[in-house]
Amino acid sequence: MTISKKIENIIAGSSFIRKMFEEGARLKAQYGADNVYDFSLGNPNVPPPEKFNEILRETVSTCGLDDHCYMPNTGYPMVCGSVADYLAKEQQAPVTAKDVIMTCGASGALNVALKAVLDPGDEVLTPIPCFVEYKFYADNHGGVLKTVATRPNFELDPDAIATAITAKTKVFLINSPNNPTGQVYSAESLENLAEILEQKGREFNRTIYLLSDEPYRKIVYDGVEVPSIFAAYPNSILGTSYSKDISIPGERIGFLAVNPAATYQKDLMAAMTVANRILGYVNAPALMQRVIACMQGLSVDIAEYARKRDLLCNGLAGFGYEFIKPPGTFYLFPRSPIPDDVEFVDALKEERILVVPGSGFNGPGYFRIAFCVSDDTIKNSMPGFERAINKFK
Amino acid sequence: MTISKKIENIIAGSSFIRKMFEEGARLKAQYGADNVYDFSLGNPNVPPPEKFNEILRETVSTCGLDDHCYMPNTGYPMVCGSVADYLAKEQQAPVTAKDVIMTCGASGALNVALKAVLDPGDEVLTPIPCFVEYKFYADNHGGVLKTVATRPNFELDPDAIATAITAKTKVFLINSPNNPTGQVYSAESLENLAEILEQKGREFNRTIYLLSDEPYRKIVYDGVEVPSIFAAYPNSILGTSYSKDISIPGERIGFLAVNPAATYQKDLMAAMTVANRILGYVNAPALMQRVIACMQGLSVDIAEYARKRDLLCNGLAGFGYEFIKPPGTFYLFPRSPIPDDVEFVDALKEERILVVPGSGFNGPGYFRIAFCVSDDTIKNSMPGFERAINKFK
Repeated sequence: MTISKKIENIIAGSSFIRKMFEEGARLKAQYGADNVYDFSLGNPNVPPPEKFNEILRETVSTCGLDDHCYMPNTGYPMVCGSVADYLAKEQQAPVTAKDVIMTCGASGALNVALKAVLDPGDEVLTPIPCFVEYKFYADNHGGVLKTVATRPNFELDPDAIATAITAKTKVFLINSPNNPTGQVYSAESLENLAEILEQKGREFNRTIYLLSDEPYRKIVYDGVEVPSIFAAYPNSILGTSYSKDISIPGERIGFLAVNPAATYQKDLMAAMTVANRILGYVNAPALMQRVIACMQGLSVDIAEYARKRDLLCNGLAGFGYEFIKPPGTFYLFPRSPIPDDVEFVDALKEERILVVPGSGFNGPGYFRIAFCVSDDTIKNSMPGFERAINKFK
Repeated sequence: MTISKKIENIIAGSSFIRKMFEEGARLKAQYGADNVYDFSLGNPNVPPPEKFNEILRETVSTCGLDDHCYMPNTGYPMVCGSVADYLAKEQQAPVTAKDVIMTCGASGALNVALKAVLDPGDEVLTPIPCFVEYKFYADNHGGVLKTVATRPNFELDPDAIATAITAKTKVFLINSPNNPTGQVYSAESLENLAEILEQKGREFNRTIYLLSDEPYRKIVYDGVEVPSIFAAYPNSILGTSYSKDISIPGERIGFLAVNPAATYQKDLMAAMTVANRILGYVNAPALMQRVIACMQGLSVDIAEYARKRDLLCNGLAGFGYEFIKPPGTFYLFPRSPIPDDVEFVDALKEERILVVPGSGFNGPGYFRIAFCVSDDTIKNSMPGFERAINKFK
């Protein structure tokens, strides 16, 4: 009883991941970092747009005392306004500054949103495979994460969702473009989802919120568009960050936006503002708020990720790996050639290739390749990927 | 059931504070901001040291991609090392980088620390008057805030503390220099506290952590020194920020440090690292980490606050206000001339003077004046302070 029991269990449960990182570090020490192909982390490697550096320098050169002080817990009104103006176009909805709260990244945003709406025992339902931290985010605020299967192509499965929603479901949490699968949910599938949430909400006499985690929205390929959740469902909340599309995850800047059409819009905004304060976030980092206000609509050069995706997909397909070419994100989620994904990930490790087993994302039988790495890492890893699959043929 | 019941209650309970701010805004609109004397907020008004701007510009001018990316959840090892080097001197303890976690301000630090150690129902004990948010921070992580009275001069009361500690007490939370009283706990009083915590820990067979919230450590006057908690008690955790001493509260940068002598030092650090991640903080803002690494030991010009303190104290003493001249912080906590502090705060408001009733800090019968304002605000408010106290003579 020296530390929290829950945290003790999380540490014990993550010994596998820790072991993986330790072995990765050992391999790099032994063979040199260039001879280890590390696809394990979603740490962007395409530089921020040049405009980011310009704006950052300009913002810093004009900083006065007031620019580092407290501001409203929701963020600078001017910044919320900038974000809202862009969102109004993106989401095809009349979003204004009063619908936006600046947050410490998307993780901060999701925690604030869940804190704001969950009562003890409330369920957060999410399609799997999913981001490994969602279960902690729900639990942090007294909620319970429940999962629902997706279709074989990782698209939403309406029948499964209708069955999985219970009287305790308070939040349906989606992440599209999806980590780890790269899938983007279609407009039609969001419409079906909205219909189910409306119907189940009436059946159980409660509002079921659609919470959309969208940090990969701008990282899409081949002209794919990510549909608007505000257009699809009134009781929707968008949480996102500039971590991936501007390559600044360390700066912890993102936002929450509540659909202006939400039934309890004002209550939600008031609750989230309080949650942002009492969780200790207080406000999103001041300087980065002012920087991203001038970066609306911009992103890193997506063509860079597209090239890496093609390099990887073409190579792996040639060796017989099976996967859905991801319409978005910088993740590829191939099927493991053998049922035990952890065993296959070990086989890749013997080739000095580091990836994450699908089991870590509630997606056993698959593995995740984060291709936000140098082209050389991809090219040089190819013989190893080939040898690994051949072992099991 | 549209938002969390707890948050709903917090919003309902804070309607008084909201009303106060709304009336303040109304007064400013009616009389002009210069004719309203707003002492309600602890928002620093002495500019950051010139060195801060230099370092910020320099840091920004040399930024590359990697400088905005993810780093270990504990922060850049180089930054933790800088902080540790300074702390080793300040705390007279062999602190190293492995004892430090960079956080999103002190509020983030306290939430991370409490998340790391509290089991459901565990008690956090704190002397009052105290910062209004502590009860939420404890509750966020399943804990319960309990309070213990201080002596008439707001120093720790060993007898009261010994009585207040129960078998459920997991954390003793102090804030010295104190918001709202400005008191600084003496080395002797920390030694007494440590003895009680040791003894009660043995009695109840559990480790009671001393968590010290120290954002005002460098804002002290007349040569006062804030004693080291690491020297006083092995199972101690320090949480702080650069918000007040460098005047950058909006940037959300601070840290947690665990006493290297703590019995479960490694477990605590592992638990806090996980808590920092799963609460959604992930890491402290990257750019500000690198900036404050070069700001160790620096602070704003404390003489500025000292002058404001003297202006205020001399004026108020002349009118018959009773108070302890604060050895630290930029707060003065005078006794209300009438038992009902809320009524007296209303009387001040009629003079266009905005302060916070002591009741808001579990300190009824007093009120808080945040003197981080311009000298003119202090000077021009004096006639109003005089008229208000005279009303009740």
